[in-house]
Amino acid sequence: MRIAGLQTPGTPGDVRANLAELDRAAADAAGLGARLLITPELFVTGYDIGDTVRDLARADLTGPAAEIAARHGVAILLGAPEQDGNACYNTAFFLDEHGGLLGRYRKTHLFGELDRRYFTPGDELVHTVTYHDLKIALLICYDVEFPEAVRAAALAGAQLVAVPTAQMTPFEFVAEQLIRTRAWENQVYLAYINHDGSENTLSYVGRSSIVAPSGEVLDSAVHGTHLLVADVEPAVVAEAQRANPYLADRMPHLYD
Amino acid sequence: MRIAGLQTPGTPGDVRANLAELDRAAADAAGLGARLLITPELFVTGYDIGDTVRDLARADLTGPAAEIAARHGVAILLGAPEQDGNACYNTAFFLDEHGGLLGRYRKTHLFGELDRRYFTPGDELVHTVTYHDLKIALLICYDVEFPEAVRAAALAGAQLVAVPTAQMTPFEFVAEQLIRTRAWENQVYLAYINHDGSENTLSYVGRSSIVAPSGEVLDSAVHGTHLLVADVEPAVVAEAQRANPYLADRMPHLYD
Repeated sequence: MRIAGLQTPGTPGDVRANLAELDRAAADAAGLGARLLITPELFVTGYDIGDTVRDLARADLTGPAAEIAARHGVAILLGAPEQDGNACYNTAFFLDEHGGLLGRYRKTHLFGELDRRYFTPGDELVHTVTYHDLKIALLICYDVEFPEAVRAAALAGAQLVAVPTAQMTPFEFVAEQLIRTRAWENQVYLAYINHDGSENTLSYVGRSSIVAPSGEVLDSAVHGTHLLVADVEPAVVAEAQRANPYLADRMPHLYD
Repeated sequence: MRIAGLQTPGTPGDVRANLAELDRAAADAAGLGARLLITPELFVTGYDIGDTVRDLARADLTGPAAEIAARHGVAILLGAPEQDGNACYNTAFFLDEHGGLLGRYRKTHLFGELDRRYFTPGDELVHTVTYHDLKIALLICYDVEFPEAVRAAALAGAQLVAVPTAQMTPFEFVAEQLIRTRAWENQVYLAYINHDGSENTLSYVGRSSIVAPSGEVLDSAVHGTHLLVADVEPAVVAEAQRANPYLADRMPHLYD
């Protein structure tokens, strides 16, 4: 299955502009044969936009994105804030190619004051969706930096871990080094899709990538707006598990 | 505290030659001001030497190494097989600068048929020694590829994880990528000291390194015999824990 990821600066605080960009990217992704388009973290609103993120969370953000998914026949993993009662979550919504909500992951590992001021942490570490026979786990940004999170996804059978992110300087190491290790050590595909440019006090590192279970980088960007594309095959996951049997060779009785 | 690591092909199956090389390396390490010399996995016997490894395990391997440590006033982390009753372990012995046995780690994650044919897995994942105010955890080769192992060491307060290894093609990814991530994600120094050259059916990748808690490579080699040297400072670990508070930001209630 072909997947795509949109690295972009987006338009911080401007939902209309971001939805217009999503519409264009979905058309491009569909044109390239992709069945899934992954956006950065909180793409539809922007990330470091102060109190505005809480205001925008009350709007219907997934409805227009679902229309875009259905219009182009491509699933969308949408980064957006999610208001639920008094709580607000930093969420990734999985909208299928008909616009149906197939899954929803709420960021569990909040990053610094920026996340903690606005968001409640999710209480479900592993959230998977099965889409066209591919088992996809959803994580967001800082989550993937914890080996426990990706390991749990792999143990739950995930073949692809899709990670909207908003990863900034001076943490280039994560995008450049850690992401490949996460894929390698768990024999999973990993799609790490970042913002670029700057937003308030943050400079994003770009450097999105889609990595194979072998650690090979299938597509990547440095800076700028890019639509990354790669083919994700369950058989490759199974082969990687034979080549590097980490999951089978774990010694869980020693890990408590 | 300055530490050293000896990357070398060694002399497979020839304990006398390997002890002579250890003696020279300990003199060099002491001359450079190092307080600890780390050898590759099973350095004193060789790794892929067939049934010979079981025969040699019955000899006194640590006694001569302890004399070398005392002669040069430098601690030695010695890779050697360890016979205990009917069991044989793939062990790293920590000999202090007086030749005293300060600790002993038995490899817990056995690699493939090569390990499983000859060795019993250890049943203690985290083994630390405190040496001149530095808390050092011991792991061996394949162990470090499991994020669970290094995480457990860091949670136990290790500041340096010392890893004798025998890492072969086609697994260059481990030496080139994974090691830096392990240091970064746990805010620990990591010394990964490998064989080089070939042995029976194996071609070792060399590529030993000593990595800082920031992921920075402090010293490294590609191929050949090299004595790596780096300074290891507990204050740097504390600073890295402030810069990247992964240990504090873990969500252990979600990891079961």
